[in-house]
Amino acid sequence: MTARPVPETVIEADPEVPTIRITREFDAPRARVFRAWIEPELVGQWLGPKDLTTKFDTWDLRTGGNYRYRQLRDGQEVASFYGSFHEVRPETRIVQTFTYEGVPDGVTLGTATFEDLGDDRTRVTILSVADSFAARDGILASGMERGVVEGYERLDAVLGAYAA
Amino acid sequence: MTARPVPETVIEADPEVPTIRITREFDAPRARVFRAWIEPELVGQWLGPKDLTTKFDTWDLRTGGNYRYRQLRDGQEVASFYGSFHEVRPETRIVQTFTYEGVPDGVTLGTATFEDLGDDRTRVTILSVADSFAARDGILASGMERGVVEGYERLDAVLGAYAA
Repeated sequence: MTARPVPETVIEADPEVPTIRITREFDAPRARVFRAWIEPELVGQWLGPKDLTTKFDTWDLRTGGNYRYRQLRDGQEVASFYGSFHEVRPETRIVQTFTYEGVPDGVTLGTATFEDLGDDRTRVTILSVADSFAARDGILASGMERGVVEGYERLDAVLGAYAA
Repeated sequence: MTARPVPETVIEADPEVPTIRITREFDAPRARVFRAWIEPELVGQWLGPKDLTTKFDTWDLRTGGNYRYRQLRDGQEVASFYGSFHEVRPETRIVQTFTYEGVPDGVTLGTATFEDLGDDRTRVTILSVADSFAARDGILASGMERGVVEGYERLDAVLGAYAA
């Protein structure tokens, strides 16, 4: 296999609606990408900026389940997050809520869609909505972009690493 | 106690953001209103339009819990709903997701706030957000208003009924 360039992560703020849309393609079949999205031992390898490690208190990824995790730098907790999994459709769709505990009144609803592009490639689109433009813009200003982009680069490696 | 007029239920669609805001005052202390909102045997007495009865498959109202219920007319199921409780703050705030199973891809995120107005009165405000104006407007066109207004009128009776 020849090396391909790192796919671009596109992060878009809608001017009309307080949403953030993240789009990213992965060079792996959909079943493999979905598995890396749901199994905590895999998620823990890629989530978030590359200088942080992730510890799960709960990760019950099923319709009606919930999660809570903390991110650490050099063993010190720097952030924690929690939410619920509203719906999980195998290999297709995950709908979840999300709160960064540093902003306890903030909450977003995100829908991740997994698209089979053929040729063992997969597109993941996450549409997150906040209930105001101020809240949405606060998230964009928080530095989430680096965490997302670096996380997906780590995920590229995870997807290669556990291939048969 | 003299009879007061039935309080108005205000349902507002924001022109700038795809939200629905429902505001209603209740002639009962906040602890009592909150209890009627969380205990399934009470919720089942008031939820939804007055010609329907509610059956809970699940009602686990706690942070990270979930719910599913069906509404029946003359014993026949006419609608079902499910979601997750993202956050529950006693007597103050409930954040939950909501899907009407007749529109399986539709989902909203709602934040209910319970305000103590003094004089044994309580204001409940629910701010629900959809991820598009089309989805939000579809909910408004679905006849939800009658269900909400009639439900709260039944809740008035429940609040009186279980007072000490």
